[in-house]
Amino acid sequence: MPNRQITIAELPTDTLEPRHFQLTETDMPKPGEGEVLLRVILMSIDAANRSWMRGATYRDAVKAGDGMPTYAICEVMESNSPRIAKGDIVAAEATWADYTVTKAHKVQKMPKVEPLSHLMSVYGIAGKTAFHGLMSIGNPLPGETVLVSAAAGSVGGYVGQIAKALGCRVVGIAGGAEKCKWVEDELGFDACVDYREGNLSKKLAAACPNGVDIYFDNVGGKILESALNFMNERGRVVCCGAISQYDTDTPTGPRNLPGVVVVKRLRMEGFIVMDFAHDDAKCVRAMQHWVSTGQIKVFEDIVDGLENAPKALIGLLAGDNKGKRLVRVGADPK
Amino acid sequence: MPNRQITIAELPTDTLEPRHFQLTETDMPKPGEGEVLLRVILMSIDAANRSWMRGATYRDAVKAGDGMPTYAICEVMESNSPRIAKGDIVAAEATWADYTVTKAHKVQKMPKVEPLSHLMSVYGIAGKTAFHGLMSIGNPLPGETVLVSAAAGSVGGYVGQIAKALGCRVVGIAGGAEKCKWVEDELGFDACVDYREGNLSKKLAAACPNGVDIYFDNVGGKILESALNFMNERGRVVCCGAISQYDTDTPTGPRNLPGVVVVKRLRMEGFIVMDFAHDDAKCVRAMQHWVSTGQIKVFEDIVDGLENAPKALIGLLAGDNKGKRLVRVGADPK
Repeated sequence: MPNRQITIAELPTDTLEPRHFQLTETDMPKPGEGEVLLRVILMSIDAANRSWMRGATYRDAVKAGDGMPTYAICEVMESNSPRIAKGDIVAAEATWADYTVTKAHKVQKMPKVEPLSHLMSVYGIAGKTAFHGLMSIGNPLPGETVLVSAAAGSVGGYVGQIAKALGCRVVGIAGGAEKCKWVEDELGFDACVDYREGNLSKKLAAACPNGVDIYFDNVGGKILESALNFMNERGRVVCCGAISQYDTDTPTGPRNLPGVVVVKRLRMEGFIVMDFAHDDAKCVRAMQHWVSTGQIKVFEDIVDGLENAPKALIGLLAGDNKGKRLVRVGADPK
Repeated sequence: MPNRQITIAELPTDTLEPRHFQLTETDMPKPGEGEVLLRVILMSIDAANRSWMRGATYRDAVKAGDGMPTYAICEVMESNSPRIAKGDIVAAEATWADYTVTKAHKVQKMPKVEPLSHLMSVYGIAGKTAFHGLMSIGNPLPGETVLVSAAAGSVGGYVGQIAKALGCRVVGIAGGAEKCKWVEDELGFDACVDYREGNLSKKLAAACPNGVDIYFDNVGGKILESALNFMNERGRVVCCGAISQYDTDTPTGPRNLPGVVVVKRLRMEGFIVMDFAHDDAKCVRAMQHWVSTGQIKVFEDIVDGLENAPKALIGLLAGDNKGKRLVRVGADPK
């Protein structure tokens, strides 16, 4: 039985395109001693996939000929480890493929929630990134104004819902009128500003009459620059991502930095979700509570088929997703 | 008896020049009820003077026709307040002038240290800014590497000496070989890199073999951009000033922001020295200790004569000072 895999055909120097990937077939891999054979069910598609192609970050760079690393939910098909059994559902680092072999000690057993996709959205990296970044770096208080970019994205949508649940005024930034309406109507943000329409500063001024206490930044670039101008004294900027900067060779810096940071005594702080792994249980407990009360709506954007993974990533970078983007490679087990 | 005063003739749009100021003579001011007449002895010359001309910051903007506000050490010549006596030495907000009148409740009595200039350097705003920024935002630990821009400047020189006293490796950035040599030889930095020579990144790599844990940024712009590339994970950037950005109409932002903040989980935080006034006594006690042990050398850059204040500020913005820049308007009392 063949195993389909998507590898990097050529590293992009500017905008990512389908030609930078290729679909290959190899033999089904066999697990060795201490290893497991995994069937990939769902893959997480993240802006970080693109940034890994730009050079070494908190992980090694992805190079031409490599598979694309991905966080995945998988079913164990064969196990050569006493720790893991056939039929277990696990989270693992896989590559874009139908099947993958990895060390048993590197996979993490997951609860069998229904549907499994919730492990990748509200209880997964997106939900945890939103929770830990907002709570531990943003330190929100009731009555504060929280501004969130990429508000219709995997992380931003949960940031806003958590902030609402905590009693904050929540303003989103998203691309396109339809998306903004969805953020307001479905996710319950107080307002959502369309950055594609132009006049961002004027719209932010109207949507944030009391200024911004916390800006949760997923995008960097010009939107960060605009948002900084609305920060209140001692405001916090949660630096979660720089999606506007990943897919270009000529990044631009916010021209008001560091001046505005000094004058307003802002704190800008970056984090990655793994830094807060010790608090994951607390996070999942809180998110389950808010899901049960209806204060948090789970939203997912699932693209079907391994062969569509490149398109799913390219589309994500262009901002066409609405919620956590996943690729379904195989079905949930019955 | 006439009172000389320097006012803003015209607001600069780009580089500050002598023609933006004018020297005028007015009558000696008279203190009213609850006011004091002050003889200005020493004025603090700061990059902030220039930034106030760019618009409202933490204070109102300075406009054409206004005097230039300045922090000054003064002798009380007449007092209409029981709180303050003739002959007292006080710190006050004055404007660039020989004499000034202000509300008695707004001045602060100072100890009569010799020379009085120490109140404006090591025990003044420069020393306090260095101490509070490094200690409260940088959180230095022995063995860490501390990088300081404008290392020969009023604040930077104390930042480095404090960090050395705490057991850090200290690297400065300054303009010109002679200044760098002075920072190494006189202030005891482990190394000082000349940014005017070019190849800044190469030189920082050599001077900071273990990366940078704390970057104390007085300049912003391209030097900030370079420094960010050498930060270690969880490094702290103390945003104290943006001197490279004040004197231009086309500020540039660090192109690696916010990407590098996310990937390295950096914290960038701005402050102004008044935020830490509650800890000033602690600061002065520590600085007096280090001055007494010789671990901190006091260094000052005193320009003589009120009429030279514009030149003193313009020169400061061009980086020609070596230590806290003051203008001496009058003599210390006998």
